[in-house]
Amino acid sequence: MKSLSESVFAIVGLGLMGGSFALALRAANACNRIIAIERDAATREQAIARGIVDDAHVDLAIVSQADIVVLATPVRTIIDQLPRVGESARAGVIVLDLGSTKREIARAMETLPARVQPIGGHPMCGKETSGLRAADANLFRNAVFVLTPLARTSPETLSSARSLVRALGAQPMVFDAAQHDRIVAATSHLPFALAAALMATADELARADESLFKLAASGFRDTSRLAASDTTMMGDVLLTNGENVANVMRDCARHLTALAAVIDRKDEIALRAFLERAAAKRRNLFSHV
Amino acid sequence: MKSLSESVFAIVGLGLMGGSFALALRAANACNRIIAIERDAATREQAIARGIVDDAHVDLAIVSQADIVVLATPVRTIIDQLPRVGESARAGVIVLDLGSTKREIARAMETLPARVQPIGGHPMCGKETSGLRAADANLFRNAVFVLTPLARTSPETLSSARSLVRALGAQPMVFDAAQHDRIVAATSHLPFALAAALMATADELARADESLFKLAASGFRDTSRLAASDTTMMGDVLLTNGENVANVMRDCARHLTALAAVIDRKDEIALRAFLERAAAKRRNLFSHV
Repeated sequence: MKSLSESVFAIVGLGLMGGSFALALRAANACNRIIAIERDAATREQAIARGIVDDAHVDLAIVSQADIVVLATPVRTIIDQLPRVGESARAGVIVLDLGSTKREIARAMETLPARVQPIGGHPMCGKETSGLRAADANLFRNAVFVLTPLARTSPETLSSARSLVRALGAQPMVFDAAQHDRIVAATSHLPFALAAALMATADELARADESLFKLAASGFRDTSRLAASDTTMMGDVLLTNGENVANVMRDCARHLTALAAVIDRKDEIALRAFLERAAAKRRNLFSHV
Repeated sequence: MKSLSESVFAIVGLGLMGGSFALALRAANACNRIIAIERDAATREQAIARGIVDDAHVDLAIVSQADIVVLATPVRTIIDQLPRVGESARAGVIVLDLGSTKREIARAMETLPARVQPIGGHPMCGKETSGLRAADANLFRNAVFVLTPLARTSPETLSSARSLVRALGAQPMVFDAAQHDRIVAATSHLPFALAAALMATADELARADESLFKLAASGFRDTSRLAASDTTMMGDVLLTNGENVANVMRDCARHLTALAAVIDRKDEIALRAFLERAAAKRRNLFSHV
């Protein structure tokens, strides 16, 4: 296995994640060369002009030059691209994806030729802005970076992936793909769905009273922030983790409806207990921020 | 009417809001003297030691010395305190409250003696931290500050209240109390309820998988932020705006359940449309942040 600084990377998709990955590799001197595969011509030009990558192509066949392939497109695009990556990749190449759901990608990775070494990844960081312009060399710094090895992933590949994650400044954490998907349905996909549902609810009421959004302050701003996320990426996420996401959304709707009933009957004790429990948990969880 | 810089203020309740109000008055040289009414001895001592107020008392009778009384306690405490403020206040005194719901307070203000001039206020700003230690002279800066005059509020009182709000660095905006309460149910109370429901949902799932909160990143942090708000204050808010709040929570639960059904049936077109509409609205609303 080559060291990271000797490795040629192929990064597929130069959006927020792929672009930030390239910038972080450069900043850490953790690569020999970075080749991008990106369908948008302006993005390819920008990436080369800014020195973010050494070379940029449209055709996935160029991954034949790479030691490590990083897939940074939306989840269902990753699943579509995997067979062609498998055709072109050299023996011993590590194929790491950055998709936000892991089970369906893991299933697609099982079908890769035996000569490549697949491993799932999910950096727990992001922004509601997207595209290469939003890319940031520090995006991964201090973030948890989930790794989901497959049964076929070798210990050496897992070890290399851990080193790569640490080089980006992130903290590797190994999970089973199914467990990952169950958890992020609650910690990541539900917050997004709530933000979108909040916008839909407020927008509906704003049709009856156009001054509504004049009274949207910092609380509304923060709670609705994720609604501005890239909808192509998030649509893929919700559809490839559908069962978990729909279940957790119904759980949350049930809590909301129960809380509304508590308010209806002016049950001060139950209300106080619910709010206190949520507040204590939230304060405990983010005591450092 | 005295000018602001000649006026004696009585601020009732030295929490985040009352403390920030006092600091902002001082910073703007918009008062002659500030008297605090605060039941907690340590807070009274801290306020005097830090020069935030000139004098601090427990008994509301001291409002007899004030030209302007500012009520900055939780909503139902304000309602409890109004009769005693009415007994002690001199003729011509302005009584302004900072409560987060306005209809029930307006109703209580109607019963004040004819010699005082009541007006409702609601600064659209806050933090999830509370208490005098969190107070900030810049809390009101550039915030919308709702004013809800009563039928009995004189044009001079409204004009003085506008000047006061501008002196704090905030932007006065006049609303009817009932309209205000309908709107903030969606823009302020619903985001809080969603944050609390998110914590409850995640906490329930964390009982089955203790690693759940390890994958709570910035999206979860922001969407759950309001759950850490002062629960006494927020409990009062929900109970004094119960009908509006419960209705808007049920509206949102309905949107969530409908979105879960869209995901269940993998209706990509409906999903995309819902997410796109929410994203466009959110980006448009906060295009400057």
